Amino acid sequence: MTSDDMPKPGQVRAIRADVRRNRARLLAAAAEMFERDGAGASLEGVARLAGVGIGTLYRHFPTRQDLLEALLADVYDGLAATGRELLVSPAPGEALTAWLRAFIARITVFPGMAASAVVSLQDERPGPAAASGPAVACRAMRDAGQALFARAQDAGDVPAGAVFTDALRLAGAIAVVTEREPAAADRLLALAATGLIPGKGAHGG
Amino acid sequence: MTSDDMPKPGQVRAIRADVRRNRARLLAAAAEMFERDGAGASLEGVARLAGVGIGTLYRHFPTRQDLLEALLADVYDGLAATGRELLVSPAPGEALTAWLRAFIARITVFPGMAASAVVSLQDERPGPAAASGPAVACRAMRDAGQALFARAQDAGDVPAGAVFTDALRLAGAIAVVTEREPAAADRLLALAATGLIPGKGAHGG
Repeated sequence: MTSDDMPKPGQVRAIRADVRRNRARLLAAAAEMFERDGAGASLEGVARLAGVGIGTLYRHFPTRQDLLEALLADVYDGLAATGRELLVSPAPGEALTAWLRAFIARITVFPGMAASAVVSLQDERPGPAAASGPAVACRAMRDAGQALFARAQDAGDVPAGAVFTDALRLAGAIAVVTEREPAAADRLLALAATGLIPGKGAHGG
Repeated sequence: MTSDDMPKPGQVRAIRADVRRNRARLLAAAAEMFERDGAGASLEGVARLAGVGIGTLYRHFPTRQDLLEALLADVYDGLAATGRELLVSPAPGEALTAWLRAFIARITVFPGMAASAVVSLQDERPGPAAASGPAVACRAMRDAGQALFARAQDAGDVPAGAVFTDALRLAGAIAVVTEREPAAADRLLALAATGLIPGKGAHGG
């Protein structure tokens, strides 16, 4: 490449703005298509709605799970913020329940989203992926939840032997089987919060 | 059809025996293939292993879910029997927990089985399907679990406001997200049994 071929600074900025705009358009189109057709919606349809070619979609999101996780990253960012706000609530146990309820509600926006979230939660990826946007957002969400959990445990609201990852996984499980049935999700979460057999467990009584 | 074309009683018995044998072979082959490749295993492979044509497989099981539910019927029969045995246990709450633990273990024999079970549990089919073998087995399993649940509730081990279908669905949810991780399934069930926030629920304290 000769110096004549090098893009000028203004051109580089224009290309970068174009890439960012395409990515934002793809995410908005995916959110719309997934909400209508579920997580298995046509990716060609997503690209068409975004006004870009399918090649552009795959350059931004090599797999469907990458696209789903990019949408989840926004959800996780929101949950991290909600978690930080709830940290000042005067009732630690109720703050944790409220956060878990928000977690279930926000990962069940479209069919298949919760299953994808459960995959992303289990995924402790080493290497470059761990530093990606979705992984960073997931970590921030976990940290906020963990802080709420630790505070509730310190207050004696959560059994001493319980661990946060199990609580998050249990909420994820409820989300997967009750997706788009918010009343059922609330009942199952309330049952798991109260305890199905409260007096008989290792930490109960 | 003239009377000469009518199969004789001995022929009818032979045909029926053949149909039963093919069905049993298909179920055994499906159990083997699904355990190896998960619920998405090749149905052509199942037919080949059973030594029958794919047309015979589809005559017995029009859809993959029908085949999965036929396998689940055996599991449900076993769980109904286990439930009836546990009814004489002196500790109602622990008997219920033991039964839910068995439920989770037995619907997670191969990947995808638990998801199929959760579908079959939600499926309150009216009409002919409700009288089919899998639906009858599912009903017997539910009845046995419901009896254990009612006994535990009468003993004060289960909160008065809780309902059995929610408990079963919660166990199904745990099975779906922890399949083939029995230690994680045990931890999540113990957490749900004890209660995540036991003192703060509507029925806790």
